[in-house]
Amino acid sequence: MTYTHRIERDGEFDEVVEATTEALEQEGFGVLTDVDIQSTMAEKLGEDMRQYRVLGACDPSVAHAGIDAEPELGALLPCNVVVQEMESGRIAVSTVDPTALVGLTGNRDLESAAEGVSARFDSVLEAIDE
Amino acid sequence: MTYTHRIERDGEFDEVVEATTEALEQEGFGVLTDVDIQSTMAEKLGEDMRQYRVLGACDPSVAHAGIDAEPELGALLPCNVVVQEMESGRIAVSTVDPTALVGLTGNRDLESAAEGVSARFDSVLEAIDE
Repeated sequence: MTYTHRIERDGEFDEVVEATTEALEQEGFGVLTDVDIQSTMAEKLGEDMRQYRVLGACDPSVAHAGIDAEPELGALLPCNVVVQEMESGRIAVSTVDPTALVGLTGNRDLESAAEGVSARFDSVLEAIDE
Repeated sequence: MTYTHRIERDGEFDEVVEATTEALEQEGFGVLTDVDIQSTMAEKLGEDMRQYRVLGACDPSVAHAGIDAEPELGALLPCNVVVQEMESGRIAVSTVDPTALVGLTGNRDLESAAEGVSARFDSVLEAIDE
């Protein structure tokens, strides 16, 4: 099953995180959360893993209308964008597919908003693909 | 479709958020993210909505094994717990169903871990239900 859209590119990890954040903002998304999984695992488990960040993106207008239509929708928000270092040294950027998330609700009123977010996430991936 | 488990109770909103956070910690989950949707909507849209918080809960060991088995899993993490004020004045606490999220991946290696998290989330809800 596909629940993300993804690109891979070269570059420094932190630069790709920054480019992703900028591209999200350019498309009207704020980054509400930023979880550094590598640091969390080092701190909590003493595990050494590759660089892995989870950015939580949100368009406040879309989220507001979504929560009005589906009060539990926050359980699926914000929409995550993963930036991770691959074994090859390349960097993968994956946006969650909002239509897959919204499918879990069974609420068809959310479908067109999810498709809109999905298309804008594809523009984000296109903007940072090089 | 059910993608959350939920309880409703009386109490002050902030106290319920605190009790939820404590119950999560008691069950071995850290709260990695905390999005105040009400404040975000007020700040970004000038909209006045009810109190609504999204806590992102994570058991680092389970997440680490999960990402090993499914490199894109971060797109679905952390697992959210929504605390929201109802029109009745009561407070609803909803935990996302990790088995529903993991179902999106189609990766059966994650099923038993998701069931374990789901059972522990039910214990969290039981602990704060009054």
